[in-house]
Amino acid sequence: MADVARASFYEPVEQELRELEARLRGVARGGHPTFGAAVEHLFSAPGKLLRPTLVFLAARFGTRPDPAVVLNLALSLELVHTASLVHDDIVDRADLRRNMPTVNARWGDDAALIVGDYLFAKAYALAAVLPKPEVIAIVAQTVFALCDGELKEVTMERALPSEEQYLERIELKTASLYAACCQGAALLTEAEPEHVAALGAFGTNLGLAFQITDDILDVVGDESEFGKTVGRDLAEGMPTLPMIYAALEADGYAGELARRITRIGKAEGEVRDLLRVIRESGGPARARERALAFHDLAASALDALPDGRERAALRDLADFVISRVR
Amino acid sequence: MADVARASFYEPVEQELRELEARLRGVARGGHPTFGAAVEHLFSAPGKLLRPTLVFLAARFGTRPDPAVVLNLALSLELVHTASLVHDDIVDRADLRRNMPTVNARWGDDAALIVGDYLFAKAYALAAVLPKPEVIAIVAQTVFALCDGELKEVTMERALPSEEQYLERIELKTASLYAACCQGAALLTEAEPEHVAALGAFGTNLGLAFQITDDILDVVGDESEFGKTVGRDLAEGMPTLPMIYAALEADGYAGELARRITRIGKAEGEVRDLLRVIRESGGPARARERALAFHDLAASALDALPDGRERAALRDLADFVISRVR
Repeated sequence: MADVARASFYEPVEQELRELEARLRGVARGGHPTFGAAVEHLFSAPGKLLRPTLVFLAARFGTRPDPAVVLNLALSLELVHTASLVHDDIVDRADLRRNMPTVNARWGDDAALIVGDYLFAKAYALAAVLPKPEVIAIVAQTVFALCDGELKEVTMERALPSEEQYLERIELKTASLYAACCQGAALLTEAEPEHVAALGAFGTNLGLAFQITDDILDVVGDESEFGKTVGRDLAEGMPTLPMIYAALEADGYAGELARRITRIGKAEGEVRDLLRVIRESGGPARARERALAFHDLAASALDALPDGRERAALRDLADFVISRVR
Repeated sequence: MADVARASFYEPVEQELRELEARLRGVARGGHPTFGAAVEHLFSAPGKLLRPTLVFLAARFGTRPDPAVVLNLALSLELVHTASLVHDDIVDRADLRRNMPTVNARWGDDAALIVGDYLFAKAYALAAVLPKPEVIAIVAQTVFALCDGELKEVTMERALPSEEQYLERIELKTASLYAACCQGAALLTEAEPEHVAALGAFGTNLGLAFQITDDILDVVGDESEFGKTVGRDLAEGMPTLPMIYAALEADGYAGELARRITRIGKAEGEVRDLLRVIRESGGPARARERALAFHDLAASALDALPDGRERAALRDLADFVISRVR
């Protein structure tokens, strides 16, 4: 986890995260060598592990924590997340993620498709043995939400979405998984109903804040720091919140800027020019405000939870998520 | 199910199959419209439904049949099968299946990828609520086998495989699912251990007979009858048993015919010419013998089961599977 590992919110659950990393690296045991190589590639530098950290922290609010079962939920949801990234990168023709070549860039689209299927299957096999059917249902619902969100992107009309449509899409594609981590862990460990609800609300708002932040960074970010290709959303014609606000400010949903943003097959020079126009507009700042508002909603959901180091860690994690654009 | 519906082996389980078809058509309820359209497309003409038929027939040998639970297993495995076809068709660049455009041909690769993910997710959600963990594990193992088989295809060297390597691949890609249908249903309904084993052996050998038959038809079949593009395996450079035998007969594993068969990016004329060479060789007949041998193994596995209309139906189903090339 490199530098991020030292962020304070990891501290209460460091032991669990180490076990999770070991289990992640063992996921391909007995499978095809290409699956093994892809798993090694994906989990040798496992990223920020925000989702499992949420699972482990949220589980602390339960009345009957069972470490082995909580670890299985964390693994399952991290594998769902990874599987969906592997498939999304095929659809998005992405070649770089976390400063590393994507699975499709490294092994080709066909192998990446099957590696994703494999990871989903591992995720479900872990979820299926969880002792609570309602938590298994949450994992399944999360995958349906991810698919719905991704289908929305793929079938999207070439028109600028409204803010509401944008939020609906990122709720499906990102926030549902954050909510599943927090709410699933609370349900699994039999937390009080009001704590389950608070953790669910925290997860949803945190996920929205995270995704808006990510979308802002794709416009204003520094490529080497961000670890992804900047301007990818624009290159793909995928309108995000800072672009929507920039277009509204310029000439509205059906104006010239909206038309340029949503056009597919842009030349490189056009992407660079649009990035400049949007960076110079009020779009990023207004999107930043929106991310901060969701962060604040997440933070206030925590008020319903008992005070302590886990609640403080969740608060720190929320601060971290938006710190990159604060 | 059109004409095939009147084949005698369906009779004992017609009621179950009708319920299954209704449930299949409802699989997309609440999902994205494109998923709904794809499900409608996939299940309006649901094919031969051999796998659910196997589940329903095998369940009759159990000591505690529970129709609702058996239906869920049948649905789950049919969805696993359909999901893997949807993904395979992307990888194989196939545009025709069951005389209909494939999902990728109709909605594009990106949407097809997500439709497959959706179907897998529905399959797992159904499997996860089955009352027996060992049956859930069978479903998961089957998906791992499908992925292993598909990865083997995708990463295959450009060399003719041995007969053994070919059989290993089709066991993973096809026979494992047939075995899961028969064995899973027997386990789920608490059949006697020797009946579970017999049904497992029946399913594996039936699956091998089925796939070899399918591979022969891709060489010798009539396009309009077969419902798929003939010569697709050759066009893709995917060596199957009749080709392997033809090459061995001609000039061996490393000979000229082997080299022509495994070459990718063949011109149309070369595919036609190779089809003719292989059809005129002893390859198809020798592959046919192999399919018949697996059929006979499947049939003799049935001897361990109590006599009755279900056993007769399984026997009929095995005869049907190879009848297309007998």
